[in-house]
Amino acid sequence: MDKPSLPKGTRDFGPAVMAKRQWILGHIRNIFQRYGFLPLETPAMENLSTLTGKYGDEGDQLLFRILNSGDFLKEADQESLTSKNSKAVSSAIAEKGLRYDLTVPFARYVVMNRHEINLTFKRYQIQPVFRADRPQKGRYREFYQCDADVVGTDSLLCEAEIILMINDVMNALGVQDFTIKVNHRGILNAIASRMGASGKESDVFVAIDKLDKIGEEKVRLELSEKGFTREQLDLLFRLITITGNHQSILAQLNADLAVVPDGLYGVKDMEQVLQMVHQYGCSDDQVQLDISLARGLSYYTGCIFEVKINSVRIGSVSGGGRYDNLTQAFGAKERLSGVGISFGIDRIYDALDELDLFPRQTQASTRVLVCHMDETSMHYGLRILSVLRLAGIASELYPDIATLKNLETGDQQRLVVEQIIELIQQAG
Amino acid sequence: MDKPSLPKGTRDFGPAVMAKRQWILGHIRNIFQRYGFLPLETPAMENLSTLTGKYGDEGDQLLFRILNSGDFLKEADQESLTSKNSKAVSSAIAEKGLRYDLTVPFARYVVMNRHEINLTFKRYQIQPVFRADRPQKGRYREFYQCDADVVGTDSLLCEAEIILMINDVMNALGVQDFTIKVNHRGILNAIASRMGASGKESDVFVAIDKLDKIGEEKVRLELSEKGFTREQLDLLFRLITITGNHQSILAQLNADLAVVPDGLYGVKDMEQVLQMVHQYGCSDDQVQLDISLARGLSYYTGCIFEVKINSVRIGSVSGGGRYDNLTQAFGAKERLSGVGISFGIDRIYDALDELDLFPRQTQASTRVLVCHMDETSMHYGLRILSVLRLAGIASELYPDIATLKNLETGDQQRLVVEQIIELIQQAG
Repeated sequence: MDKPSLPKGTRDFGPAVMAKRQWILGHIRNIFQRYGFLPLETPAMENLSTLTGKYGDEGDQLLFRILNSGDFLKEADQESLTSKNSKAVSSAIAEKGLRYDLTVPFARYVVMNRHEINLTFKRYQIQPVFRADRPQKGRYREFYQCDADVVGTDSLLCEAEIILMINDVMNALGVQDFTIKVNHRGILNAIASRMGASGKESDVFVAIDKLDKIGEEKVRLELSEKGFTREQLDLLFRLITITGNHQSILAQLNADLAVVPDGLYGVKDMEQVLQMVHQYGCSDDQVQLDISLARGLSYYTGCIFEVKINSVRIGSVSGGGRYDNLTQAFGAKERLSGVGISFGIDRIYDALDELDLFPRQTQASTRVLVCHMDETSMHYGLRILSVLRLAGIASELYPDIATLKNLETGDQQRLVVEQIIELIQQAG
Repeated sequence: MDKPSLPKGTRDFGPAVMAKRQWILGHIRNIFQRYGFLPLETPAMENLSTLTGKYGDEGDQLLFRILNSGDFLKEADQESLTSKNSKAVSSAIAEKGLRYDLTVPFARYVVMNRHEINLTFKRYQIQPVFRADRPQKGRYREFYQCDADVVGTDSLLCEAEIILMINDVMNALGVQDFTIKVNHRGILNAIASRMGASGKESDVFVAIDKLDKIGEEKVRLELSEKGFTREQLDLLFRLITITGNHQSILAQLNADLAVVPDGLYGVKDMEQVLQMVHQYGCSDDQVQLDISLARGLSYYTGCIFEVKINSVRIGSVSGGGRYDNLTQAFGAKERLSGVGISFGIDRIYDALDELDLFPRQTQASTRVLVCHMDETSMHYGLRILSVLRLAGIASELYPDIATLKNLETGDQQRLVVEQIIELIQQAG
């Protein structure tokens, strides 16, 4: 028999990794709840009618489809089978797929339960998602997403709270050197208008999204190939590279974008959000207004966020923003605007590992291992174990061997059980 | 556009249900860890070569299969397609499936990581499993399993610890009136021998497994149709219905099974396990030696367990036992005996709900809702919020409206923020 293996792009999380992941997720869950977000879980399997058409053509191709049970070929068209037309056959033999992200299932849940939900609705969701992507370093076919969204209000308080929440998460994880980049799609739209590039916003967003990776020269090249003039690009780069403190950047944008009809709503939103964040007591140093932040082809319409841990060479560990209408794709008539944030657990894990920020206790679970030399000591051991566990201390009786080992220091101490509990509780 | 729906047999867990599920799982996870079990997670997607052949023919048909990505029909045999031979085509177009339980993925993990694992290995795993079963009340196509196993030792301490652990879980969940039924496959085998029914043990196990549901008369009928005589069945029912305290039941079995070659090893195991459970301090009243407990067609070879919450009409909420060889199905040469326990989260949920045992706090997450009447009070509200959250109290600022509501009592009190924290922390 062949040695068993895992499907490409999937992973087991053994005890050592799990302990660290639980430590991260425990902190995030805790902070989500402290901010009033409530947990939601949706099934891994969704109807394909729920999933298709929501992620573009490319996304549709990356959906994992689940074969119908039983005699699945019965419904398939004979001609499509004979011509081996995979696409035509697929829709006949697979009705369900695996969820691709947590946003579409959330929107489906809201549409299906609209009458029982009180707005504003704040939910968080931490579950694996599935993508038939080509696996590569750091890219998996099954991986966790960790999202929090508040929907049903246009209030900018939500944006401020999301920024605060990110700040709290990074602090709880012990990360000191991080930057929360913020921007507003309204500012970018106004810049596009000012450039005379209205209607071509998405070209601009996709191009400047790559600025970090490929540099200004290549971004300019890409955009000039799309017909942008030298003057347009000079203006674009002057505006998206404005630096300084929040006030001076906003003042500059106010001066440059006042001529654009309705060109200042993004700037005004941003001003209010940054002011609230300041009032909440979050240091301005953590929050960077970065006009070149675009978040590519995403569906955001208002404020956008991205979080970078500065001392590691790992992409952004969190991102999000305000969207205009969560449930539009399901044909819902009511407009439900919201703000969402997503934490990249795999990247956060790698960053904390590199920075050695995991506390030592997350490495092991059991604190006391009771060993016995003979039957009498075993019976005494059983009683000690009960007392230790009652005190909440993870303890084990080693079932088979008969030698005593102190696993960390090699020290041996003769203690009564009360002393053991005190010692361990002091050690934290 | 049609209103979106969920696949048959799947569920969303909204915030109210999630809070209660998290409360249950938090207690169980906590107790697992206290007993030295370490967390493991495996992917939802497994290779079909890992899954097939492990659950019998019926199980194989209940596996959810995942369509290969891309042009999946390319590899399929033209003739099988033309004749619409679903079974033949299935293996050509689907290489992966969804996990059916947590035991097979655990065994696969142990085989793949055998060299990094220290025996004895104690793992717990809490993840959803997927079965293409006919959905009905209480039976789902996607549902959580919650397993703990210790492998790599024959020590009966493990059995004792599993019983203790079940006892702790029930106590932590506030369940008072429960029974942990225990038995031993060795006792049942010896009874079959004594009946002269060696080789027909599984007929006996499957039949007496139904005793609770269909009664003695129908079980007798089923077995006499399989060729058992009246005398055999009288002996069987006399032995499996022995009642009394542990000592008297074991004494009776000792007397009846001494004539069977090697007929007392199950009785001896059971004696030791019950003695250790007693020494640990678990009340004998919670543990019932029930010789009619069989656990049907399962792969158990030693002690078996089943847990019943007595005051509700819900089947067993937990079950498990000792098996002889975890990794045999993967062709591993080393014999890895182990003991496992599985908690049925859906049934536990229903039982606690019926008994009204969920604490009131699990119903809601946010403890303080700060509302503002105007901009000045909003800014003050923002500062209060930060202080409350720093104190670990889940708090929200209501973003849109401007009236103050005390959600529970209707009472209004003027308090400074320190008083609020004290009040809430006192309330627990």
